This record gives sequence, C-alpha cells and structure tokens, in this order.
Amino acid sequence: MSEALQRHDGTHDGVASVAAATSPSASGSPAAAAASPVPPELARLRHSIDNIDSALVHLMAERFRATQQVGVLKAELELPASDPAREAEQVARLRALAEESGLDPVFAEKFFAFIVAEVIRHHEAIAAQG
Amino acid sequence: MSEALQRHDGTHDGVASVAAATSPSASGSPAAAAASPVPPELARLRHSIDNIDSALVHLMAERFRATQQVGVLKAELELPASDPAREAEQVARLRALAEESGLDPVFAEKFFAFIVAEVIRHHEAIAAQG
Repeated sequence: MSEALQRHDGTHDGVASVAAATSPSASGSPAAAAASPVPPELARLRHSIDNIDSALVHLMAERFRATQQVGVLKAELELPASDPAREAEQVARLRALAEESGLDPVFAEKFFAFIVAEVIRHHEAIAAQG
Repeated sequence: MSEALQRHDGTHDGVASVAAATSPSASGSPAAAAASPVPPELARLRHSIDNIDSALVHLMAERFRATQQVGVLKAELELPASDPAREAEQVARLRALAEESGLDPVFAEKFFAFIVAEVIRHHEAIAAQG
C-alpha cells in the first residue's frame, strides 16, 4: 500500500477496499487475469464519465445540425464562413460561463477554437458545393 | 439576389426575407450601420448554438470534476495516468454513439482525443504534486 493511500485510510473507504481488490496476491488466479481488476471507485467514476460523454456527443450532434443550417444560410446570403466579431463574443461568453462552473477558462477557449475550426471547415465545404 | 438564393425562393421563406433585410439599399442609413444586420434566421440559429454551448461548458465542467477525482484515485493507487485499453473502449463507444446521432465519427474521435490529452495533463500534474 502506497504512502499516499495510507494517508487517506479511514477517510476514503472505497479507496482502501480497492487496494485490497487490486493487491498482487489475487493477480495469480485466472479470474483476476480475465477481468483485469478495476477498483470500484474508479468504475463508479468511469460510469459517470461515460454518461457525460454520451450527452456531449448528442449535444455536439445537435450543435453541428445548427451550424450546418448556418452554413447553408451563409452560402445562400454569400456571407463569409467565419465571423470574427461573433466569435469574440462567444469566447467571452464561454470563458465567463466556464469560470462560473469551475471549468478552466483557457480550456474552454481551446475547446471552442477546436469546434469552430471544424465548423468553418464544414462551411467552406458547403460554400464550395454551392 | 444571388443565383443560389433564387434557386431556393419559395421553399426557404426565411431566407428570402433575410435577403431583403440585408440588401445594399438599406446599408446607407445610420441605424443599419449601428446594428450591423444579422439576418433573423441566423440570429435564431445562433441563439440555439449559444444554448447548446452553455450546456457543453457545464457538462465539460462536470466531466473534469469526475476525471479530477479519477486523477486523485490513480495517484493514490499508483495507477498510470493513461489507460489505453479503457480509451480504446471509449473511442469505440463514442464512435457508435456519434453514428447513431448523426455526428461525424471521425470528429467524435478527434474531440475525444482532445479532451483525453487535457485529462492526462491534469492527471500527470496531480501525480507530480503527490
């Protein structure tokens, strides 16, 4: 048992029992080898992360449905694919929301830039097809 | 009016009225210059995108709360920050969810890689502090 874990004994019950489940003495059995042991506390957190990721994928799908429509509209109106003023407003808004919800604002901004790059790629493709 | 727009006359009513609102003849007035005209259909879509982005930021904040706990747990149990087998499972699951919801699976995978890179950065920082 690591020193770090010992410091937490009695406060993180899940962690202590997890250490027992992953102790080297159990690793020799075929059952343990087949199901490489995931500490229960880790399994619990991973389940939440999977649920959140499902929601993120569905929201992202919905976001691209909206930006796809924006792309068609912009091509029809011959508006440019990118709009720096709008993007600056979005970044400011998302950074404020990130701070409020405990997300790193720098990450929020990187995340937004990542999505916008993809959106612009789509818009340019739509404009090229038009 | 653009050729592209004319092709859609009568099927996209919103678009036709938008073209009138943004026609060059109106752009000379001070009012038009002050409020650079956003076509109403575009404003409507942007409102939906802003709502979706708010939800994404809050979900992302919640996701990092969970992975932060995972990071602490992994440091305590001296597990490596990255787990290729788990990540492969997640990618397969997210690609399937993306296909189901109409999101580009390639984008879903890129998005996941982007988040995981940030998570691993956090985990390594936690492990270094421990």
